[in-house]
Amino acid sequence: MIKLDFHPAGRHFLQIPGPSPVPDRILRAMSYPTIDHRGPEFAALGLKVLSGIQKIFKTTQPVIIYPASGTGAWEAALANTLSPGDTVLMYETGHFATLWKKMAEALGLKPEFIGLPGIEGWRRGVQADAIEARLRADTAHVIKAVCVVHNETSTGVTSNIAAVRKAIDAAGHPALLLVDTISGLASADYRHDEWGVDVTVSGSQKGLMLPPGISFNAVSKKAIAASKTAKLPRAFWAWDEIIEMNKTGYWPYTPNTNLLYGLSEALDMILDEGLENTFARHQRLAAACRIAVKAWGLEVQCADPDVFSPVLTGVMTPEGIDADAVRKTIYERFNMSLGTGLGKMKGRMFRIGHLGEANDLTLMATLAGVEMGLKLSGITIKASGVTAAMDYLSNQKIPALKIAA
Amino acid sequence: MIKLDFHPAGRHFLQIPGPSPVPDRILRAMSYPTIDHRGPEFAALGLKVLSGIQKIFKTTQPVIIYPASGTGAWEAALANTLSPGDTVLMYETGHFATLWKKMAEALGLKPEFIGLPGIEGWRRGVQADAIEARLRADTAHVIKAVCVVHNETSTGVTSNIAAVRKAIDAAGHPALLLVDTISGLASADYRHDEWGVDVTVSGSQKGLMLPPGISFNAVSKKAIAASKTAKLPRAFWAWDEIIEMNKTGYWPYTPNTNLLYGLSEALDMILDEGLENTFARHQRLAAACRIAVKAWGLEVQCADPDVFSPVLTGVMTPEGIDADAVRKTIYERFNMSLGTGLGKMKGRMFRIGHLGEANDLTLMATLAGVEMGLKLSGITIKASGVTAAMDYLSNQKIPALKIAA
Amino acid sequence: MIKLDFHPAGRHFLQIPGPSPVPDRILRAMSYPTIDHRGPEFAALGLKVLSGIQKIFKTTQPVIIYPASGTGAWEAALANTLSPGDTVLMYETGHFATLWKKMAEALGLKPEFIGLPGIEGWRRGVQADAIEARLRADTAHVIKAVCVVHNETSTGVTSNIAAVRKAIDAAGHPALLLVDTISGLASADYRHDEWGVDVTVSGSQKGLMLPPGISFNAVSKKAIAASKTAKLPRAFWAWDEIIEMNKTGYWPYTPNTNLLYGLSEALDMILDEGLENTFARHQRLAAACRIAVKAWGLEVQCADPDVFSPVLTGVMTPEGIDADAVRKTIYERFNMSLGTGLGKMKGRMFRIGHLGEANDLTLMATLAGVEMGLKLSGITIKASGVTAAMDYLSNQKIPALKIAA
Amino acid sequence: MIKLDFHPAGRHFLQIPGPSPVPDRILRAMSYPTIDHRGPEFAALGLKVLSGIQKIFKTTQPVIIYPASGTGAWEAALANTLSPGDTVLMYETGHFATLWKKMAEALGLKPEFIGLPGIEGWRRGVQADAIEARLRADTAHVIKAVCVVHNETSTGVTSNIAAVRKAIDAAGHPALLLVDTISGLASADYRHDEWGVDVTVSGSQKGLMLPPGISFNAVSKKAIAASKTAKLPRAFWAWDEIIEMNKTGYWPYTPNTNLLYGLSEALDMILDEGLENTFARHQRLAAACRIAVKAWGLEVQCADPDVFSPVLTGVMTPEGIDADAVRKTIYERFNMSLGTGLGKMKGRMFRIGHLGEANDLTLMATLAGVEMGLKLSGITIKASGVTAAMDYLSNQKIPALKIAA
Repeated sequence: MIKLDFHPAGRHFLQIPGPSPVPDRILRAMSYPTIDHRGPEFAALGLKVLSGIQKIFKTTQPVIIYPASGTGAWEAALANTLSPGDTVLMYETGHFATLWKKMAEALGLKPEFIGLPGIEGWRRGVQADAIEARLRADTAHVIKAVCVVHNETSTGVTSNIAAVRKAIDAAGHPALLLVDTISGLASADYRHDEWGVDVTVSGSQKGLMLPPGISFNAVSKKAIAASKTAKLPRAFWAWDEIIEMNKTGYWPYTPNTNLLYGLSEALDMILDEGLENTFARHQRLAAACRIAVKAWGLEVQCADPDVFSPVLTGVMTPEGIDADAVRKTIYERFNMSLGTGLGKMKGRMFRIGHLGEANDLTLMATLAGVEMGLKLSGITIKASGVTAAMDYLSNQKIPALKIAA
Repeated sequence: MIKLDFHPAGRHFLQIPGPSPVPDRILRAMSYPTIDHRGPEFAALGLKVLSGIQKIFKTTQPVIIYPASGTGAWEAALANTLSPGDTVLMYETGHFATLWKKMAEALGLKPEFIGLPGIEGWRRGVQADAIEARLRADTAHVIKAVCVVHNETSTGVTSNIAAVRKAIDAAGHPALLLVDTISGLASADYRHDEWGVDVTVSGSQKGLMLPPGISFNAVSKKAIAASKTAKLPRAFWAWDEIIEMNKTGYWPYTPNTNLLYGLSEALDMILDEGLENTFARHQRLAAACRIAVKAWGLEVQCADPDVFSPVLTGVMTPEGIDADAVRKTIYERFNMSLGTGLGKMKGRMFRIGHLGEANDLTLMATLAGVEMGLKLSGITIKASGVTAAMDYLSNQKIPALKIAA
Repeated sequence: MIKLDFHPAGRHFLQIPGPSPVPDRILRAMSYPTIDHRGPEFAALGLKVLSGIQKIFKTTQPVIIYPASGTGAWEAALANTLSPGDTVLMYETGHFATLWKKMAEALGLKPEFIGLPGIEGWRRGVQADAIEARLRADTAHVIKAVCVVHNETSTGVTSNIAAVRKAIDAAGHPALLLVDTISGLASADYRHDEWGVDVTVSGSQKGLMLPPGISFNAVSKKAIAASKTAKLPRAFWAWDEIIEMNKTGYWPYTPNTNLLYGLSEALDMILDEGLENTFARHQRLAAACRIAVKAWGLEVQCADPDVFSPVLTGVMTPEGIDADAVRKTIYERFNMSLGTGLGKMKGRMFRIGHLGEANDLTLMATLAGVEMGLKLSGITIKASGVTAAMDYLSNQKIPALKIAA
Repeated sequence: MIKLDFHPAGRHFLQIPGPSPVPDRILRAMSYPTIDHRGPEFAALGLKVLSGIQKIFKTTQPVIIYPASGTGAWEAALANTLSPGDTVLMYETGHFATLWKKMAEALGLKPEFIGLPGIEGWRRGVQADAIEARLRADTAHVIKAVCVVHNETSTGVTSNIAAVRKAIDAAGHPALLLVDTISGLASADYRHDEWGVDVTVSGSQKGLMLPPGISFNAVSKKAIAASKTAKLPRAFWAWDEIIEMNKTGYWPYTPNTNLLYGLSEALDMILDEGLENTFARHQRLAAACRIAVKAWGLEVQCADPDVFSPVLTGVMTPEGIDADAVRKTIYERFNMSLGTGLGKMKGRMFRIGHLGEANDLTLMATLAGVEMGLKLSGITIKASGVTAAMDYLSNQKIPALKIAA
């Protein structure tokens, strides 16, 4: 029998860019007794989370909550709006954009995958002008959807979705806009309605601070209209019946009750803090983290300051240094998990998550662990990133902690 | 703000046929800290649950664990093994068999739905001879799969899967055998390998005593072979990559960590009790429940004693009595949830769940609540079902409770 | 390593008269993070529980909350108000009255222990006239305090405290009135101020539904005045410094934070239900229990209907039947704990707790377990107590369960 | 209704020298269902914790576990071994030694309080030679007990108890040796038997990582002999009956079950880590903390390097700086609680706790919070304590984290 409830002395620091640490408060909520998903209490819960999650997406349109992890919501976005053989324009921002493209192929779509060459594309955001150019060229409107990743978890780049919207409009192209903000939601500002997104895909285990297991499709009228004629087979992911039953707070099949308890609590926490305050906190922590990386003399993976991610920071290790060996040292010596380099960046970078239940001191612990780990890995640092980050943080004005009453 | 952590004085009795009450022990396990699903601890967890769940299915073949609810696993079974337009033979045992058929249609398959007429089919198990006859007639082998529900949750009927296997073999037909035991697994005896099932579909929120959110496909070599040529589009549900990565204890996409903690604990609980003891307990409680129903002078929905379900008992209300009004009375007066009548049985029956974390005294509480509720609903009962059930239970020999040490 | 988190299949029924089953909601509250007992959040918690607990005692005077179990609060009541060698009049209602007397002796007091002879005294409440007579005879006012037990946990008798107050007043005697309602508080009506009690002693693990570990002294002006001159040495139990610091929500020494979280939650639960509703529920369950005992043809330990306890029912077993053997049978076969006979009643009775988180169906489960256990123990019952209890309960009008919103 | 389950964004850092942060694992254990404290499961729990706690005290003699907080165990040590009017020699190491002395007075003992003058005594450990001299002078053996504090929580000084033992022996004096290691146990090395301590007093909320509410008396044969003739009244605290009943794993009165669950878990955690490893970890963190303080140019309260505490570090603020204002700034800006200066040191120092569930990164977070808070409070620091601490920590060799299996 393995022992799951192990703890080496002291708290583990889970500083990967998701799953993020789940607050005790949410874990407690998840332990409420499971109830009848057809009974009267359930409707109150259902209506609450359905309405609350709209605020997080900044939408007044339906948000579908799936009892499935985020990858499923990717599939749902495609399967509800497209037909076999449809061409979709996808933009390579990194590993997850690449995986989404692979999924489109597996589902029988024809993804056209554009982006900057080599790892250069993995260091910058979506180039909206390239999308515009491609759409202008598509005079026959063969392209049915544009798919982009808002916050690319593999690199730490948060693309400008409003610019993509503008590009599509400028090209006068009817393609749907599908956006993955699995790791951006509730950490980076996101505006489903204002940006004219047709389907936004997201998940629970990042800014929402839940364990994995819930995922989302926020939709538009245009997307729903598209779903009426889309031919990809679908059942579990089909929007129509879910949207219909959601009106009364129920689901057509068994929802995952206890994760919905967690979602309800997460919504309370985030809306109590204030969504804009949550975003500001993430921006502050991310800025402090980048300042530390710069002080160490290392390079941030994201090469364009306009699209630095507030969720995570990718750190490139010097030539000849295996980033995963650094991660292993830090894990074994300091009881901290960092994200590995994925795909093209395997072994060349590690990722520091600073999302969800994160504050100045958990970030400082994280940076201290990285700084000590870099030294133990034989990497010469230029200066202490920890002191640079402290300088920055202690100069930020934030409201004093107040006691709840 | 709604208050989720409400409790009217005293414990709610959740006696629907799933989600079943989640034991505190499992809720606690679900609150272990979320860990890195790519980190070293995770592999130990992954390998443990993957191996443990095989024992529950009585299989040595792979079991795929989906981070999605049971309806998803239905889709997975179809999508991995079949191609658009394939004919499948499905058997109507009740509401869930009917829903699975609807799903097959939605996915572009051609289900042939057979069964006994009217509600008669909802009171008996799968008639294996009818399947055999149909397969014998299909000399061209147009039928690609036979789909049956093992434990029909809407009625309380547990069909004989071994007989279905024999029927297919007797007909010399190559069709795959797909079985849904979402509500049967870990409560009713089930033998994936011995019965030659090709895909078994199951879920977490019934005999496994977990909240909803995890589901399963147990597969056979023949099913895997079929998946190589099956043409239904699939990505999230695709077996191949999952089976491959599972060898090391990982998943290709984010698994739902905290529900896997719960699964690990559930496996410990069930295997500690002993799977056969678990089955015997369910049989004992189900027998006591039926004895009560008979004493009351009411009819059990299942009309064939050979296929009484050990998981739930469907109770038909007398003509003119709305079963849902009875349920409402019991809910409001005794703080107990019973299952509603579904589909063809709407308003004509209620369902008593006695699965998962259930024992003699929780059943007695349940039967007492029903008996009092029947009276309060104006139904004249013939005799006390509660005393009849006590007579039965107190004559059953079971091992004395032992203290864990 | 022993395994504490064991559960034989299904829920254990803890039907002893305390510790009572702790609701999940309270267990969750107890898991909030421990905070600085000198920090600002703590004061809010402290003030809340100090004010809430007054409502439960029905007092506007200070209630001292000790980070210690109930036996300690007995000692506190004596040590704060009395001097070495003081005579105290104590009344024998049962085992706990006897233990309190032993404690008085150990502390150097001179208890005079009166009551009815033999087990007769253990079947009736405090005889107020006997107290009055004794006090009238004490013209020199040698007796400094009258000590009685409100709800005698060993027998199931709830004495009339108002009558004792009247007796003291009628005698014109200045003795203090000290009352133990450890097992009565929040289950049986109790009125510290109205009844003119000088010190009320109580604990957490009964009607308050908490684990053991917190206890109380509710005091009067007269008791506080007495404490100024009382000579028994005391430090940990001393009221003065605690009452002083409590004004700001703090304690002079470390309070048991996490049990106070539980207390805060318990207060919310009880005051939400309404104290009088809580009492009515206990009376209903106790009446149903006694009806069952009578139907079985057994005798309730309490021989005076005016003082039946709403908290527990003592059941006398027939001559020649070892009550503990019956309890063992029920424990091993039905996973239910009943209270043993204590002191003079050892082996002659068992006690059924129906307090705290208890409702109609948990009581029915309990009575079913007892009824089956009696039969398995070879005791012939006259009739089914379970059906008699159901008849009674289903005729009680109580408000329908409402959904919290 | 106040909201107890509040969390400003991110985790609170509870860095007071106790209550220390309670690990989730212990909180979970505390939520096991309360059981019958007279039932068979309880004995297994009782015997386990009674035997495990002996290993922590390094004793083979009885350890009494009280369902009361630490202050109670102080009283128990005195009340069980002494008689009214007895002279006890107590040594002033700080605030808690002073409180213990006040308690001795309140109980009617005659404490003789020796120590170095002014705050000098609060900066050094017990001067064993002064004790020896005093005892040599007491040729009439008027002094019945020597009382010292092992780890003085108000200052961060860990006195040499072996030296006190030697002093008593050298003086040939029969006085009992009573030691308070409430805040030292399980963090600082402690040897009840080897050091010849007669009564060791401790509590739960420090190195044992539990919430407050449990306390201990470890005793010696000599102490038990003394208790036979000691005349201070006692009942709740009386050892004899508890020791007798503990032989079978039970207690004479209701023990606090759920905190014992927590104790059981804490024992598993500490003994799994290895007591000596636990001590080494505390020493490493304390050394790093002092290095930081020195780098800042501030003074550690403890002036004698031989008795630096591994549990906490007292930090003196520069003349004219109110230490509590610094603490407030840090609390409000960085969501971290530090210990206040007590008694003679009020406003002149703050205390950093680094005990219990603490590791390198939680310490680094703490030190970063202090360093930023010092700057925000207008204190000029000489150099970064954070970088000094990182230099130290990254040079310590400790075993790599291993995955439990």
